[in-house]
Amino acid sequence: MTTASDKGRVLLAISGYEPTAWLKAFAGRREATLAADGPGDPSIRYALTWRHQPDQLSGFPNLKAIFSVGAGVDHILADPTLPDVPIVRVIDPSLTQPMIEYIAWRVLDHHRQGLLYRIQKQKKIWHEPSQRPASDVSVGIMGLGALGTEAARILGALGYQLRGWSRRARKAPGVATFHGREGLDEFLAGTDILVVLLPLTAETAGLIDYALLRKLRRRNAIGGAVLINAGRGKLQKDADILRALDDGTLKEATLDVFEIEPLPKASPMWTHPKVFVTPHSAAGSDPDRLVPAMLEQMDALDRGETLENIVDRAAGY
Amino acid sequence: MTTASDKGRVLLAISGYEPTAWLKAFAGRREATLAADGPGDPSIRYALTWRHQPDQLSGFPNLKAIFSVGAGVDHILADPTLPDVPIVRVIDPSLTQPMIEYIAWRVLDHHRQGLLYRIQKQKKIWHEPSQRPASDVSVGIMGLGALGTEAARILGALGYQLRGWSRRARKAPGVATFHGREGLDEFLAGTDILVVLLPLTAETAGLIDYALLRKLRRRNAIGGAVLINAGRGKLQKDADILRALDDGTLKEATLDVFEIEPLPKASPMWTHPKVFVTPHSAAGSDPDRLVPAMLEQMDALDRGETLENIVDRAAGY
Repeated sequence: MTTASDKGRVLLAISGYEPTAWLKAFAGRREATLAADGPGDPSIRYALTWRHQPDQLSGFPNLKAIFSVGAGVDHILADPTLPDVPIVRVIDPSLTQPMIEYIAWRVLDHHRQGLLYRIQKQKKIWHEPSQRPASDVSVGIMGLGALGTEAARILGALGYQLRGWSRRARKAPGVATFHGREGLDEFLAGTDILVVLLPLTAETAGLIDYALLRKLRRRNAIGGAVLINAGRGKLQKDADILRALDDGTLKEATLDVFEIEPLPKASPMWTHPKVFVTPHSAAGSDPDRLVPAMLEQMDALDRGETLENIVDRAAGY
Repeated sequence: MTTASDKGRVLLAISGYEPTAWLKAFAGRREATLAADGPGDPSIRYALTWRHQPDQLSGFPNLKAIFSVGAGVDHILADPTLPDVPIVRVIDPSLTQPMIEYIAWRVLDHHRQGLLYRIQKQKKIWHEPSQRPASDVSVGIMGLGALGTEAARILGALGYQLRGWSRRARKAPGVATFHGREGLDEFLAGTDILVVLLPLTAETAGLIDYALLRKLRRRNAIGGAVLINAGRGKLQKDADILRALDDGTLKEATLDVFEIEPLPKASPMWTHPKVFVTPHSAAGSDPDRLVPAMLEQMDALDRGETLENIVDRAAGY
């Protein structure tokens, strides 16, 4: 019988999440620890990371792979001392499912005029607003990876017109696709609700700025353009979004991410009536669901197999 | 060539809707009028009705059928002077589509904690609440007609557990079904979010009362039971819903309909923080989409064909 220690140990280099639940999810399957026995600890075979400390992952002679908690890996690649081992980006239904719920919810809330109804309720106004069906509304998804493709599937089932944009050419069923800088303007010109699910890379940082938002379709079935960012905060320029909301370039926005997180108390986002704020919680990572998927992949690596979903460090995702 | 007048005229007996758009949708296809030339007007061949006046439909010797604007027909059957002609209940994607958008939107908003996030925003609180996936949440649909079945389809695509209740036994793919009074308690005991899409009949009037709401599952993945009524106001007892919200029997409610409509300014619903109010606007009837479907059915009747979707007056729907 193989014991946990034969498999080495898993270092949990996690900040911003409560680590206890992660430790517990490993219990009885693989030995996991929140702190290595010094920087050269030979027992560390794998690392799990979310916003780890600088140097926290370096110097382990037997480290075979790094696993990312969450869909994005920019927080890992930002570490200049990162060891040269595969970075595994977990793609699991337990990550995609909350995200498609969030995207469907926020698209529907903007399309079905949640904000207007809340204002009407405050004023005790009984008035049926003009309402167009989903089939008259175009949702444009930036980023057609696992999350974007799944989001398109459910938005299609809800009846929305779909378009998608990605860095390189991609296809998705029922989605009019565009790619690269040369396809961006046409993509935006036909988009009423922009859903941002891009990875954060040198190319995408700051992409969601005022000039880009100006290119969205404002004369549309929902009476203005809407932005939903559930990707990364540094994809966007917070000040540009506020400017766009105030001059009518945008009708409303849902933001799960911000340039600085946690969002500072002084940010005008908190009090802006047209912004719906969630605290980077669109798709929280559930250890009870993710750890079993990671354990399977660790077992595969132990057997010498090759994994899919390895991060391309040059591309940044 | 057949002219409009050869086909007789269509009486639009509509209140609560702006009639101009309906007249316009008939233009050039059939002659339509807002008022007959007296009660015995022989030119009236068909009537379109929504909350018509008493006697407004009686005495037309050539009336062949009555068409309902909207999914419910209780407003028509309430007229004791109603002539004995078929009542056609229009079932059209343009009616079901807005309703499934509304149901999906409201289920997601309760499940994904829209109210909590709005409170957190007011207080500038950056906190990720515990969030369970749709697969841990059971949505129970009362009424498995065209609307309920379509709602189940999209909620299933979103990942929810589904159960359904109807007066008589019915099947729907992926839905655990229950029926009759004898199946009601078991249906409710496994339901976290109750979606009411029942027709209003003598049997269903006042069905959504405190005793029924007590039977919902409160110890669940969303921290309480939720009611969504997008059927008819007289299915529910407004006071019972308020009591259930105040003593924790219900966590939150979405109400598109009320015992008295428009909802009186004095109603506590307006100011109750746990109630989301819409003004009977879940699925507005769009003349540009509905009239073509009605015209086809009028043509079929003119040719002597038999229609589906004729109301069963004894059953009340």
